Parts: sequence; C-alpha cells; structure tokens
Amino acid sequence: MRPDFAKCVDGLVPVIAQDVQSGDVLMLAYMNEASYDETLATGRAVYYSRSRKKLWRKGEESGHVQKVDSIYVDCDRDTILLKVEQIGGAACHEGYKSCFFRKITPEDFEIVGERVFDPKEVYQS
Amino acid sequence: MRPDFAKCVDGLVPVIAQDVQSGDVLMLAYMNEASYDETLATGRAVYYSRSRKKLWRKGEESGHVQKVDSIYVDCDRDTILLKVEQIGGAACHEGYKSCFFRKITPEDFEIVGERVFDPKEVYQS
Repeated sequence: MRPDFAKCVDGLVPVIAQDVQSGDVLMLAYMNEASYDETLATGRAVYYSRSRKKLWRKGEESGHVQKVDSIYVDCDRDTILLKVEQIGGAACHEGYKSCFFRKITPEDFEIVGERVFDPKEVYQS
Repeated sequence: MRPDFAKCVDGLVPVIAQDVQSGDVLMLAYMNEASYDETLATGRAVYYSRSRKKLWRKGEESGHVQKVDSIYVDCDRDTILLKVEQIGGAACHEGYKSCFFRKITPEDFEIVGERVFDPKEVYQS
C-alpha cells in the first residue's frame, strides 16, 4: 500500500504532520515519491519544498527534525498523515509549536499558539 | 485575517478537519472562497468537491454534518485547520471515524480505524 502520487497535482501528496503525544496538528506539507521513500528509509520526515523545488529534510537547518512514529494513508490514497515526535518542540519556522497558531475570530484573529523559539536566533541567513 | 485563496492551485485551500474532542485527524478536503464563507456563516463545514466541481455541504446526503468549533490558519495562510464535532461519529464515506484508517506497515498496511457505519446502509445510490 502506497500513496497514489500519480493522482496528485505535480505528483505531490499533501501530508499532515501531527504530534504523536499531544495530538496537535503541526503543519501541512507535501511529499513526492522520492521524499516519501526517504522518509520510510530514514524514519525522519522528508518533504518536497514547492518553493525551493527540492527535497526538504525537515529540520536540516534548525535541527528541529521530525521523528516518524507512524504513517497513515486516507481512503483515497491521496493524503498522508504522519504522526511524529517534533524535536525542539516547534514545527513552525516562526517558532510556534504548530503552524496553526492563529485562530479566526469574528473581528480578525487571535494568537493561540505557544512560541517555543525566536526564529532570529535559530535561522541565521 | 482570511486564508489566501489566490495563492493556492485553482483557488482551493486544503482543509484539515480534526475532531475537537478526541484530537483525531478526520480528513483532508478543500475549500474555495464561497465554501469558506458559507462555513463561517452556517457553522457547518462546507467544502469544494474537486471531482464534482461544486460546493460540498459535508453530510448533506448522510446527515453526518460537521459542526465547526473553531477555525485556524497556518503561518503561510494557505492551509486551514477546522476543529469540528462530527455528527454520526464518522467522517469517512467508507464508514470509518477517520479517513486515515490504514496504517502503513513494512509488509503492507493494517486497518487501525474504527468502523462506525456500513456505507451501503447510509448511501443509497
């Protein structure tokens, strides 16, 4: 059983990363077939960066890798759910545990996420 | 604060539906701007069906609607997280609580999800 990459736009399957302990949804990213195979082989989340157009070994710069606990495919085989242990405690490049740190409100939004690190200190570009 | 529909392929933003009580990831679907606005207005999840090319009022056939508890956008404003109460207990058209009922194993896969209903009894087509 493999995801059906051919079915997805540009061969990229959306991947939901979920914290295996807390159940928090951390982020959505994409995998092509090569990144999926590397994820299986290494036990660490490897995505495909649509902006940089290359494999994205999550955490290769920040050290905040995602150790894969388990992998699920959905009924249509066109979405992946990864349960992960997020090293460093933050999945988001803005320093929050989860990329979904903004809750929509009738007025606008509120920050509900927990900031774990200051991006300026982690990413030296 | 709104999702950035213009940024997404065909104006469709991926939406992760998560059970607000259990934290289970239920499904991934897509919203266009009209479905997002109807979701906000009605408090029920309305998606855009890419296969049927029209608004998909989740549960309109099965009665298994999703009551929206809260809505989150990610750092890039190109993914939505919906926390929902899944009426009927099953989000998947195959009768499972979650569409992610198959866990990948080294051999193949195993069914780990809980089947709540028999699709043949719910969908009379």
